[in-house]
Amino acid sequence: MDQALKGIKVLDFSQLLQGPFATQMLGDLGADVIKIERNGSGDIYRGMTFFNQWIAGDESPCFMAWNRNKRSLAINIKSEQGKEIIYKLAKEADIIVENFRPGVMTRLGYGYEDLKKINPGIIYCSASGWGDNGPYLTRPGQDLLVQSLSGAIMTSGKKSDGPVAIGTALCDQVNGLNSVYAILAALFYREKTGKGQEIKTNLLSSAIAFQMQDYFTVQNLGQTFERPESKIGHPGNPAPFGMYQTSDGYLTIAMSPWPKLVEALGDSSLMEYDDPQLLFDQRDKIHGIIEAITVTKTTDEWLEIMLALDLWVAKVNDQKDVENDPQVIHNNTFVEVEHPKAGKVKVTNIPFTMSETPGKITRPSPMIGEHGEEILSELGYSRETIENMINENIISIEKA
Amino acid sequence: MDQALKGIKVLDFSQLLQGPFATQMLGDLGADVIKIERNGSGDIYRGMTFFNQWIAGDESPCFMAWNRNKRSLAINIKSEQGKEIIYKLAKEADIIVENFRPGVMTRLGYGYEDLKKINPGIIYCSASGWGDNGPYLTRPGQDLLVQSLSGAIMTSGKKSDGPVAIGTALCDQVNGLNSVYAILAALFYREKTGKGQEIKTNLLSSAIAFQMQDYFTVQNLGQTFERPESKIGHPGNPAPFGMYQTSDGYLTIAMSPWPKLVEALGDSSLMEYDDPQLLFDQRDKIHGIIEAITVTKTTDEWLEIMLALDLWVAKVNDQKDVENDPQVIHNNTFVEVEHPKAGKVKVTNIPFTMSETPGKITRPSPMIGEHGEEILSELGYSRETIENMINENIISIEKA
Repeated sequence: MDQALKGIKVLDFSQLLQGPFATQMLGDLGADVIKIERNGSGDIYRGMTFFNQWIAGDESPCFMAWNRNKRSLAINIKSEQGKEIIYKLAKEADIIVENFRPGVMTRLGYGYEDLKKINPGIIYCSASGWGDNGPYLTRPGQDLLVQSLSGAIMTSGKKSDGPVAIGTALCDQVNGLNSVYAILAALFYREKTGKGQEIKTNLLSSAIAFQMQDYFTVQNLGQTFERPESKIGHPGNPAPFGMYQTSDGYLTIAMSPWPKLVEALGDSSLMEYDDPQLLFDQRDKIHGIIEAITVTKTTDEWLEIMLALDLWVAKVNDQKDVENDPQVIHNNTFVEVEHPKAGKVKVTNIPFTMSETPGKITRPSPMIGEHGEEILSELGYSRETIENMINENIISIEKA
Repeated sequence: MDQALKGIKVLDFSQLLQGPFATQMLGDLGADVIKIERNGSGDIYRGMTFFNQWIAGDESPCFMAWNRNKRSLAINIKSEQGKEIIYKLAKEADIIVENFRPGVMTRLGYGYEDLKKINPGIIYCSASGWGDNGPYLTRPGQDLLVQSLSGAIMTSGKKSDGPVAIGTALCDQVNGLNSVYAILAALFYREKTGKGQEIKTNLLSSAIAFQMQDYFTVQNLGQTFERPESKIGHPGNPAPFGMYQTSDGYLTIAMSPWPKLVEALGDSSLMEYDDPQLLFDQRDKIHGIIEAITVTKTTDEWLEIMLALDLWVAKVNDQKDVENDPQVIHNNTFVEVEHPKAGKVKVTNIPFTMSETPGKITRPSPMIGEHGEEILSELGYSRETIENMINENIISIEKA
């Protein structure tokens, strides 16, 4: 079967998280993604990891997670020969993605205006931290910093906690998704009209747009969110919406009709709270009352009772339990690929199905410059010239 | 200027959050989105809100946030005449989006196989909670429930907190973004080949894929994340990565070279911790040591000192302060639109720029069935027939 982006070439200057996530999504649907890395050391993210631990000696799980379905060319893009190669690749590319600080690509001779001259139909996406201009132009833009400035860090947990970081790289990943959204719309438009264009995304705007519902509320309802002191699951929501301790774990109850929940809990005196305003105003107290009941049975017992009443409930899984969840197994969420150095690694599958053009994982994350010879041969460089470039430290090729 | 999706027609059966967010993104880039609502009461989300408070009497900020750039047709889709209208709209549509529980659309006669007969090139996206099949098929799928089952709820805050809900509708919104990613790739493919297709997305798979980096680590490094007990900002990261109290608020410090940070803090004895393993193992203790220093100055004072050393720092904004942040003002993040009932409302702008086909906000969220007459006239129905349909309760039209 075909893939939706088969035949599309992506020239990827991005590193760390947001850009690589975006280009990986293009690769997942069949695009040929050429990852440009620093010769020798590669993407900065290769040098960062969790727990100060590494896979197969020196491979980073952070890097490996966001760089499947790509080929790597490790090259000194400031050298004359490097520039010649980049221009040749740009001439054949459909999409360019970069996430340097604003202005860097232009200084290197690879800005939109430069590459448009070589390839007028190019779609060029620059993904920055704060925007391509403005007061924070020169400041470092990074996920946790953007969580902080965008208010996202003040939306989880309890008010008395102060800021609570969201455990995923929320802003990076949402901007990766927004970059793909804009790039694919531009690609469709180019297919119809022949016109390329420049796209500029940034972490800050994406982080705020992701909180669109909260901001709409704060700005138009004139009431500010105050996080609850209990495990109510959203600062704007009434009881019972939240997480409840059971005798062996946690049960989550989402919006559910109060009388039905009272029936499930088996204490009809709780009907005194059957009023939307009371359920909001006294949510912390009501949470405590419910939890005093939920701790008396196991999560599975409550699920059986409550699902039978079509209450909106689910159990809480720790990340380490998720791969054994029956629906996760059914959905084929985790698959294995063979990595040249690390052997079999488990990766997260493409999270949706397309009947005609399925996503596929055809490559693990590359070694640094692993595909240098292959990519340069495709451009017509001879084996000898390639050897010379390795000797002159213009490119580097790592093999397992 | 053009818009990228100008001329594309979306027939939108979705309600609540994930589906409407997806179709709003298509509308933001120029698609003509026809929102199909229940005649009379409309989208279920119109009846849900925060704080039990409403805008202009009975408008929900939750609904309003996700339904700009759409026209509404409120119609009984089970009636014979309703079905005739839906089939006519489906014949002209490019994209169908729905997020009923799996099987509902087929039972109504609007499944992919039904509409494909009418319109072979249709792109049909079904967005479910858990997947289109499997053990949780009949269970309610909702954002907080999916946060719980996917492990996302165990990644923020402190370990001793137990589950901590992420303050935005993370799973709904990420699946909205993934649906748009798949739909636009399918649209590009159709433009090249003429072939439509069926897309199936679900909240659970999107929630897990969004934690791709964490899962890659847990499954391949063989070490499980344990959340810190201090305000270290990620369970896998060492000090100083986290949030620190200052004399007037909070300062966030992301990955920064330890010697430079020690210089900024002005206590060279801290160089004893200049070791990646120590910075991870003793992160909670080190967080406390740093915070004892940061509380002695204001956030702005620390920003001045630390940004001069190119340390990765930012201040923490509460959501209510964000609209006054100078970069947010510069980015034109919030704009006003005129709503027929609520008057001027502030909305979050499209979070990126496209040089040739900019996103635009041309309509506020619609009233229930507001565009019924206009849409039915376009299909060729006479004013008299439309009046009859209103009288027979097949459609309803709300005006301000």
